[in-house]
Amino acid sequence: MSIVTLMTDFGLKDGNVGVMKGVIWSFAPQAQIADLSHLIGPQNIREAALILARSAPYFPSGTVHLVVVDPGVGTNRRQLAARLGEQYFVGPDNGVVTQYLEWVQARRLTVDFVHLDRPQFWLPEVSQVFHGRDIFSPVAGRLAAGMQLADLGSPLSDPHRLALPQPQRTPFGWQAEIIHIDHFGNLATNLRLEHLPGIENLTVRLAGVTVQGLVRTFGERPPGELVALFGSTGNLIVCEVNGSAAARLGARVGDPVQVQVNT
Amino acid sequence: MSIVTLMTDFGLKDGNVGVMKGVIWSFAPQAQIADLSHLIGPQNIREAALILARSAPYFPSGTVHLVVVDPGVGTNRRQLAARLGEQYFVGPDNGVVTQYLEWVQARRLTVDFVHLDRPQFWLPEVSQVFHGRDIFSPVAGRLAAGMQLADLGSPLSDPHRLALPQPQRTPFGWQAEIIHIDHFGNLATNLRLEHLPGIENLTVRLAGVTVQGLVRTFGERPPGELVALFGSTGNLIVCEVNGSAAARLGARVGDPVQVQVNT
Amino acid sequence: MSIVTLMTDFGLKDGNVGVMKGVIWSFAPQAQIADLSHLIGPQNIREAALILARSAPYFPSGTVHLVVVDPGVGTNRRQLAARLGEQYFVGPDNGVVTQYLEWVQARRLTVDFVHLDRPQFWLPEVSQVFHGRDIFSPVAGRLAAGMQLADLGSPLSDPHRLALPQPQRTPFGWQAEIIHIDHFGNLATNLRLEHLPGIENLTVRLAGVTVQGLVRTFGERPPGELVALFGSTGNLIVCEVNGSAAARLGARVGDPVQVQVNT
Repeated sequence: MSIVTLMTDFGLKDGNVGVMKGVIWSFAPQAQIADLSHLIGPQNIREAALILARSAPYFPSGTVHLVVVDPGVGTNRRQLAARLGEQYFVGPDNGVVTQYLEWVQARRLTVDFVHLDRPQFWLPEVSQVFHGRDIFSPVAGRLAAGMQLADLGSPLSDPHRLALPQPQRTPFGWQAEIIHIDHFGNLATNLRLEHLPGIENLTVRLAGVTVQGLVRTFGERPPGELVALFGSTGNLIVCEVNGSAAARLGARVGDPVQVQVNT
Repeated sequence: MSIVTLMTDFGLKDGNVGVMKGVIWSFAPQAQIADLSHLIGPQNIREAALILARSAPYFPSGTVHLVVVDPGVGTNRRQLAARLGEQYFVGPDNGVVTQYLEWVQARRLTVDFVHLDRPQFWLPEVSQVFHGRDIFSPVAGRLAAGMQLADLGSPLSDPHRLALPQPQRTPFGWQAEIIHIDHFGNLATNLRLEHLPGIENLTVRLAGVTVQGLVRTFGERPPGELVALFGSTGNLIVCEVNGSAAARLGARVGDPVQVQVNT
Repeated sequence: MSIVTLMTDFGLKDGNVGVMKGVIWSFAPQAQIADLSHLIGPQNIREAALILARSAPYFPSGTVHLVVVDPGVGTNRRQLAARLGEQYFVGPDNGVVTQYLEWVQARRLTVDFVHLDRPQFWLPEVSQVFHGRDIFSPVAGRLAAGMQLADLGSPLSDPHRLALPQPQRTPFGWQAEIIHIDHFGNLATNLRLEHLPGIENLTVRLAGVTVQGLVRTFGERPPGELVALFGSTGNLIVCEVNGSAAARLGARVGDPVQVQVNT
């Protein structure tokens, strides 16, 4: 039983996600299909990259991740499939694999990319504006049905990578930034557990406010209080207990965050 | 073929629901998974309780309902699994089972709760802020794969129950309240068919307006008219035909509703 | 392995879509179920008709399409099931099949309609306001499980059809209109490739602006530019590259579009 996940910026109202499932099941009738997100901001490749990296490790070996955020559809941007460790990726060559590829390479797992340059494995007619349906879904379906990656296209060694913002060391700690705002309005930074080993006494400054100390979970403090903690993905996050830090602070992706390590 | 349903307040944009499916399929590769709702209001346990109670009876025997609305994640609130009649529940001990439990007990069906206190059945690493992924999804997957409830934790006899608003008798009928507003803006009250046996001549007052009589369905009256009827769950609802009663009346959950029984 | 697709105007927050899946799986435990859209505008049958017609051809033979946009629920509007070519339709007799039926008939494929008039194939209790759950889901599940269409009801020859807006020829080209606005804010017109065979030099006027020429895809022009092209469904669409033409132009479904064919 193989699994396919879907992530796009298509939204949920127009039927395009359903159509992709129809195509995938045409090639892999037994495939389980999970939506990761179809509410990626339009053309927001970075957001999709972040969600892919933190989601993929929780899927079983052999899962195929189809990610279509594709402002370059129909131009000469390449289309890819890849084996990344024990899982597969299919989508445009737009850098969306960057963070997950780092995770895989840090574990010294196998990585193989192919350029999807064999139209015989796509739908017979290819629209210039919906490769998700006409190229990527057939390829994902074929992988889910057991076809070998190497048969789908020519080897490729230079996938596009995003230049992602890295936290910078300062005399007193770190200069970080907000990289994601979730459904609850929690603010995720690019500072991670690895940057702060064993450190519990922090001061976080962002959007004109100061948050003292680290908590382990929301419920340690009363509703309405701002807290800092490590989220379920290992990133430092700033939250309002039972509320929206984003709405309260007017914070946005890209906003700076100063983290002072107290001794 | 077992079924798992998912209900959360996680929203649909961040990938967290997809991740839970990946974990469930790691334990139960064949499971069918249906989303009930991921747009429960943040921390709104009552709303999830209502939707669980009216949805669960339509699922086949053996279905596992995973409900994660969890402001207390990572604190000392307990985590539960239960057999409720012929179906299963998994989630935090927050009272979300209250109404479905009443439905099951009214039918004198078997009820068994366990405290999920055996970490060997969870993911190896447990985040303090995402038990849905790390505790509840593995448990739901194991139940779907046929593991026995009693093996997952210690027996528990006092699950948390919500104190839900009950309609009150008045000299002329009932004092009720709005307990849910649906996607169409229809207003559901806590007054049910059982409270009004055989009664067809009602006057409903709410938000400064009066609705006379009961209809059987929307299409009996012209678009724009306010009507009262029994909804598909057996609750008395107030609706604007082809419109939104909530938008028109500015009504909210918790608003009072007077129902006068005319003779 | 049979497939069922679901399209409704129910939204995603109230659990009603999940309940329909529970009922379908009660009859067809192995069925794959794909959501096409549950964000159809309330009572907007035309929008559902458009999405059905452009989605259904991408599903495998034998797929059952359940479409419930049903302002007439509980009145004397009929309920239908149909074989349309190699696929099935189930839903109220509201004209939602119109465009897909035209597609099927243009290909001279078999068409059979039945009036769902045999309550023994529904749920035992039928609400007057949720036939999607109580009538259509059991019927869709039975079709997915292999039951014959002809057994589900009496033959019917006059399904309701929508009167859809047709583009009109003018001395200089075509008078068209906007028939759909997608998640990205792209504006789809009712003018199709068939109306403009081999034509590449167009001038499109709508909402007070003029768009010159046709592009093949978005990425041919810089972000922010308005372009006209044929979308993935063969309709002429007007888009803002990496932006929302709908938001920029304040355009709405039904707005007129003049297309001048230049020689």
